Amino acid sequence: MPGNRVVVYKGPGEVAVESIDYPKLEIPQEVADHFGISKAAPHAAILKLVATNICGSDQHMVRGRTTAPVGQTLGHEITGEVVDVGDDVLFVKKGDIVSTPFNIACGRCRMCNEGKTGICLNVNPARAGAAYGYVDMGGWIGGQAEYVMIPYADFNLLKFPDRDQALEKILDLTMLSDIFPTGYHGAYTAGVTTGSTVYVAGAGPVGLAAAYAAQLLGASVVIVGDMNPERLQQARSFGAETVDLSQDASLADQIEQIVGEPEVDAAIDAVGFEARGHGEGAAEAPATVLNDAMTIARAGAGVGVPGLYVTGDPGGIDENAKVGQIGMRLGLGWAKSHSFFTGQCPVKRYNRQLMNMILADKADIAKAVNAVTITLDEAPEGYSEFDKGAAKKFVINPNGMIPQSAG
Amino acid sequence: MPGNRVVVYKGPGEVAVESIDYPKLEIPQEVADHFGISKAAPHAAILKLVATNICGSDQHMVRGRTTAPVGQTLGHEITGEVVDVGDDVLFVKKGDIVSTPFNIACGRCRMCNEGKTGICLNVNPARAGAAYGYVDMGGWIGGQAEYVMIPYADFNLLKFPDRDQALEKILDLTMLSDIFPTGYHGAYTAGVTTGSTVYVAGAGPVGLAAAYAAQLLGASVVIVGDMNPERLQQARSFGAETVDLSQDASLADQIEQIVGEPEVDAAIDAVGFEARGHGEGAAEAPATVLNDAMTIARAGAGVGVPGLYVTGDPGGIDENAKVGQIGMRLGLGWAKSHSFFTGQCPVKRYNRQLMNMILADKADIAKAVNAVTITLDEAPEGYSEFDKGAAKKFVINPNGMIPQSAG
Amino acid sequence: MPGNRVVVYKGPGEVAVESIDYPKLEIPQEVADHFGISKAAPHAAILKLVATNICGSDQHMVRGRTTAPVGQTLGHEITGEVVDVGDDVLFVKKGDIVSTPFNIACGRCRMCNEGKTGICLNVNPARAGAAYGYVDMGGWIGGQAEYVMIPYADFNLLKFPDRDQALEKILDLTMLSDIFPTGYHGAYTAGVTTGSTVYVAGAGPVGLAAAYAAQLLGASVVIVGDMNPERLQQARSFGAETVDLSQDASLADQIEQIVGEPEVDAAIDAVGFEARGHGEGAAEAPATVLNDAMTIARAGAGVGVPGLYVTGDPGGIDENAKVGQIGMRLGLGWAKSHSFFTGQCPVKRYNRQLMNMILADKADIAKAVNAVTITLDEAPEGYSEFDKGAAKKFVINPNGMIPQSAG
Amino acid sequence: MPGNRVVVYKGPGEVAVESIDYPKLEIPQEVADHFGISKAAPHAAILKLVATNICGSDQHMVRGRTTAPVGQTLGHEITGEVVDVGDDVLFVKKGDIVSTPFNIACGRCRMCNEGKTGICLNVNPARAGAAYGYVDMGGWIGGQAEYVMIPYADFNLLKFPDRDQALEKILDLTMLSDIFPTGYHGAYTAGVTTGSTVYVAGAGPVGLAAAYAAQLLGASVVIVGDMNPERLQQARSFGAETVDLSQDASLADQIEQIVGEPEVDAAIDAVGFEARGHGEGAAEAPATVLNDAMTIARAGAGVGVPGLYVTGDPGGIDENAKVGQIGMRLGLGWAKSHSFFTGQCPVKRYNRQLMNMILADKADIAKAVNAVTITLDEAPEGYSEFDKGAAKKFVINPNGMIPQSAG
Repeated sequence: MPGNRVVVYKGPGEVAVESIDYPKLEIPQEVADHFGISKAAPHAAILKLVATNICGSDQHMVRGRTTAPVGQTLGHEITGEVVDVGDDVLFVKKGDIVSTPFNIACGRCRMCNEGKTGICLNVNPARAGAAYGYVDMGGWIGGQAEYVMIPYADFNLLKFPDRDQALEKILDLTMLSDIFPTGYHGAYTAGVTTGSTVYVAGAGPVGLAAAYAAQLLGASVVIVGDMNPERLQQARSFGAETVDLSQDASLADQIEQIVGEPEVDAAIDAVGFEARGHGEGAAEAPATVLNDAMTIARAGAGVGVPGLYVTGDPGGIDENAKVGQIGMRLGLGWAKSHSFFTGQCPVKRYNRQLMNMILADKADIAKAVNAVTITLDEAPEGYSEFDKGAAKKFVINPNGMIPQSAG
Repeated sequence: MPGNRVVVYKGPGEVAVESIDYPKLEIPQEVADHFGISKAAPHAAILKLVATNICGSDQHMVRGRTTAPVGQTLGHEITGEVVDVGDDVLFVKKGDIVSTPFNIACGRCRMCNEGKTGICLNVNPARAGAAYGYVDMGGWIGGQAEYVMIPYADFNLLKFPDRDQALEKILDLTMLSDIFPTGYHGAYTAGVTTGSTVYVAGAGPVGLAAAYAAQLLGASVVIVGDMNPERLQQARSFGAETVDLSQDASLADQIEQIVGEPEVDAAIDAVGFEARGHGEGAAEAPATVLNDAMTIARAGAGVGVPGLYVTGDPGGIDENAKVGQIGMRLGLGWAKSHSFFTGQCPVKRYNRQLMNMILADKADIAKAVNAVTITLDEAPEGYSEFDKGAAKKFVINPNGMIPQSAG
Repeated sequence: MPGNRVVVYKGPGEVAVESIDYPKLEIPQEVADHFGISKAAPHAAILKLVATNICGSDQHMVRGRTTAPVGQTLGHEITGEVVDVGDDVLFVKKGDIVSTPFNIACGRCRMCNEGKTGICLNVNPARAGAAYGYVDMGGWIGGQAEYVMIPYADFNLLKFPDRDQALEKILDLTMLSDIFPTGYHGAYTAGVTTGSTVYVAGAGPVGLAAAYAAQLLGASVVIVGDMNPERLQQARSFGAETVDLSQDASLADQIEQIVGEPEVDAAIDAVGFEARGHGEGAAEAPATVLNDAMTIARAGAGVGVPGLYVTGDPGGIDENAKVGQIGMRLGLGWAKSHSFFTGQCPVKRYNRQLMNMILADKADIAKAVNAVTITLDEAPEGYSEFDKGAAKKFVINPNGMIPQSAG
Repeated sequence: MPGNRVVVYKGPGEVAVESIDYPKLEIPQEVADHFGISKAAPHAAILKLVATNICGSDQHMVRGRTTAPVGQTLGHEITGEVVDVGDDVLFVKKGDIVSTPFNIACGRCRMCNEGKTGICLNVNPARAGAAYGYVDMGGWIGGQAEYVMIPYADFNLLKFPDRDQALEKILDLTMLSDIFPTGYHGAYTAGVTTGSTVYVAGAGPVGLAAAYAAQLLGASVVIVGDMNPERLQQARSFGAETVDLSQDASLADQIEQIVGEPEVDAAIDAVGFEARGHGEGAAEAPATVLNDAMTIARAGAGVGVPGLYVTGDPGGIDENAKVGQIGMRLGLGWAKSHSFFTGQCPVKRYNRQLMNMILADKADIAKAVNAVTITLDEAPEGYSEFDKGAAKKFVINPNGMIPQSAG
């Protein structure tokens, strides 16, 4: 039996690659105990990781903005080869190359039945919803690793139809585990459709994916706002318009220069609670992006909120922020009859469709987010570079399975 | 030509009935000027009021919580007889008894095309959306009057099929102009459907209408929360459960006692920005209701927000409240993947359906909200009594047309 | 180990109760072979039947209108007590009282993921979708029996929260396995909502359930058409209006007498391919009901088609009917922009909601369809009486578990 | 006052350009009489035609397959300059360049309120819905003319924001009056979305527009079937796959060769009642396309039916066809839980969105359908060439306003 190595949080600003046990076909003890179910998991599979990405939401933990303990394993963007399955895994087979949603879901509860796999009721003692390698998300081991265990494998795994094709397109397909569906969910819930004008706040990987997804959904114009010139350049690389929020001109004015009116049909918050105010050197201001969205979204618009807001933020700027309370100009949104859609993306709702687009050569998502391959040992460096604002999406290649020709 | 009398705002806490001109087939000068259209309105009709109700949102003005000037005419819940029509009113005829949505809409702009009549683009120079007799809502004269002018009459007026039947059921039908659709909109957008458990914050007329509408939508249990015992009693009169928010027990605990779990499937905020905290003598706390909703709504739930939130509140409790900024625990909602639906109800979307229910004897809304008929001269008293928390919906009978037998 | 007895098809017009093996935790060999999966089924459970109903679609087989072989086991409306579970059944426990949808679904394929459990891809070698005890539906053993095996039990079983309450309300709850959701699906897909006028063709159990569901969905008027006076009387028992199709007056005229116009907002075909023409002694005419629906449904209406249409009907009236080809007046529907919704009801989409209504005393479905309890040995008599048009829904009580007080 | 010239039906196979009166601001006498409304139309506008296209549905009349009388004026695909307006036309101004939906709608009835402008209740004495220049469609004069009258102009006209830009893109924008929205409607109602595989029956202009729209909606693969090699070539010009229905290979086999399975996610019937069977020289077979669609659409699929089916077809192949009754294999669709969406496209629901796409250079619809400009006098030749199967969309330029540089 092989060993296993995984990325681990070591304290604010620090991650390391450490050895842990090879995964077993078992769920976390705390989950088994809480739900009164068997720890042995005939529904589970073991994956040998093909690709596993560093995510912006990992950075919240690594920056010390959560209660993640030292030793927390990391990684929830998982694509791999099935190397072992339990007795009740019937439709996924050893050798399959598969993507798994970052949300862990049982496929058997009311929420899963309704397609709300981001808030499964059976996988996390603390609340609805779980994820791999994340604080307060059920104790599931992270997948920035060589191997990882996936529960409810027939439900959670999306099989790629052809192994060779999958490996060739792996840099695109690896985005199906999180950011491509998450960006799409933001755009979709905001109501983006044929002909929409769209504003996306944030040009990190999720913002870029949201902008790209808005184009797939038929937007006539997509505008991305950020203060990071490299990331804005990245947005322009696939035809998005951009506004530089470090400029003095108001967001509404900058939008008007692009679309001829100071409003858009739909807005997406791809930033979340660590938002900053506008202008150079602006301080953290957690409701800025939402208040911006209400300012520049047309009456009747939807606001998609894939950006993370938290129930507690020990590093928050004030007492309100520390308990997740933010100063929203809700009266403005109300006057404009806005709707707001929050929460984790239920990845399963979209990943098959987006896979089809990638396999039909209709979605160059890897290029849009500037995917860059690194080894597992380079992960700490990747975290650091990403935290500094690199306009890159880091894809870890833990088992050397990503072909040179990929992407 | 007859004269006209209308209810007018005279300063904080004070209204009066005053004489004004009989209405003309003309739109407000400010609207004509702003949109570059004719003041003469061949699309307009004059109604002789049959019934016109006092609304909780009128109280915001009368309590001095808005910038309404002294002299503001009041009244947006309008049911009447058509007594005059312009040359381009083709389908509504003199003698018809009709209901008109409180939202004024042109029927010709993009928003009206999309059914979003609450945010019509052609009726208010200040913003999307207009209403009769309301500050910042386009300068349209109020309808707590003997006569009122309705623009775009073919679009705005809902004809009752039979005059005699209409007058007999007028106390129910008068609720179609605002609170019945508004309550329904709150419940509908919150996702209430067959089998839902529902929490409605606020037992004023809109809250009661929302609770009643939730029953029509198929809710299995509807729970109404308030601190006013008479209003809670009114909610129980049609089968709703109630929680008394002046009690010490938490809202979640009280809900658990009713439905066996501390959560519901859908939540409706029928209170708005003048919300108070819990417990006896609690102070104003504008985000209380929304934060409650996020606490007790199940993961995946919708939150309908028919309660009014404003962009500016001169009487707000602090600097944030004065500019319509409130401290929302959005992180809590985000963790539960909540969706939020705000804004004026687009009455036209629902009023025909609800009329059908009333005419088929399937919706006793007048009884549910405890409709009480008063004369026009009794309107000031009605305002005062309503402001003190009477569990009544005041229906003004300005022309003595409501039959004794109605309701 | 106990034995097992089950209702079996013995040839046209004939059924019998026969002994078969006690069920094993195994799927049919043909399903295992076709999909290349294990016959042993750790995901399965054994139920001891509490209630199991005779269905109109069973009659198609028993009347010899299908290719069902002699020996076909019958019964797909299954409510029972869990008496055994496989290793991967985690959330359903021995002793639970549960309902199971008549559609068998894996919970793991694309269709199940999309909530389309009526067309699961992994349970029937012949086509999408399967059922218990039905020809061409995968070879699963029928549940008009003492015991039955349920695959994918965590996915397929709906647990009733309280055993005693469940047994007390068992005559209502037993309708959750098929006809209540099926009727609801017909009404829901037809677009029935608050205030709708609705026509339901057919006053058998599914038609009655559709009419009742239409009321729950908020219909203002529900009209049921049939030629069987007892069944029409049953429809009137819960407030539906009725039209007698054996009369000379046209359907449109009869509808006009009820609602004042010869049209309704939504139409539901609860008859299917064995439809007859109008008037006394009318012959079979398989497109009659659909053509009626297009005649009397308003422009823009939806037509829900829960009634069964088949791909082959050996007993069909002509060569076209034998291959499932029927003469639809589609031009009429096209001129009115109708939409048509066909297929098995995906029971899981609705059964939890409808259970909530029953448990909250808001849905007296047993009374609406006139549920009558019989023993397993009385099943042949029940089939015969039902086939003659009894206005009853026969509920078999195979293990004597239905309390005297139920219903 | 200028004169007016219009294309007129002269008998089977024959059209001519004839002089008629310059239009008045009046509705047809039969409409005024039937609805009891004024013939004078303050809501109307006169357009000077910029572009007006020959449509496949015109061909049904010209081939003698309808009851159109000799003298019937033709033309319902209308784009023009506003040259006169009635007193109640407020938001559209003289000089505006506008598109008008082929469906005439009042904007004031229940159907228009619901966005169902294809079945307006106030514009046609014979049935719901009307159109310019079409038999049984209300008597409105056709728009293959120099001038045409548009009723309810504020509601029906879509203004292009910039005159010069509009004229430059006029060959694209002229498709907004019918085929682009109609194709989009077919794809949209069939459920085409991100990643779908789609089959479009028919490579005439509507089929090509449906295929192009399916791409805009995010289809991963679009397959167009026809027997006309030029039209198939046209489909390939914008990236669609094609199947040649004159080949011996079955449709399912040909689809399998393209997508690896004999099924697609969504099917669109862009042919209608004049369908032919497969293979060279196949005879007319009105249900062929629908039966094909049920054969190759996946279980759970939607079938969009923009192709026209009629209530009476004097030239039909048999007695059934003559009354619009066709032999549908509905049992096949039922077994697969298909849904069917028929009727005229409500153009207003989509034309603004599609205009935005054109103006943002994201929809080259003119090129996709091979738009070709002709003079009004060349119209008879255009009809003839189109009837022979030319892979062209003929755009008439009646006033010489289409710039040389357009398209």
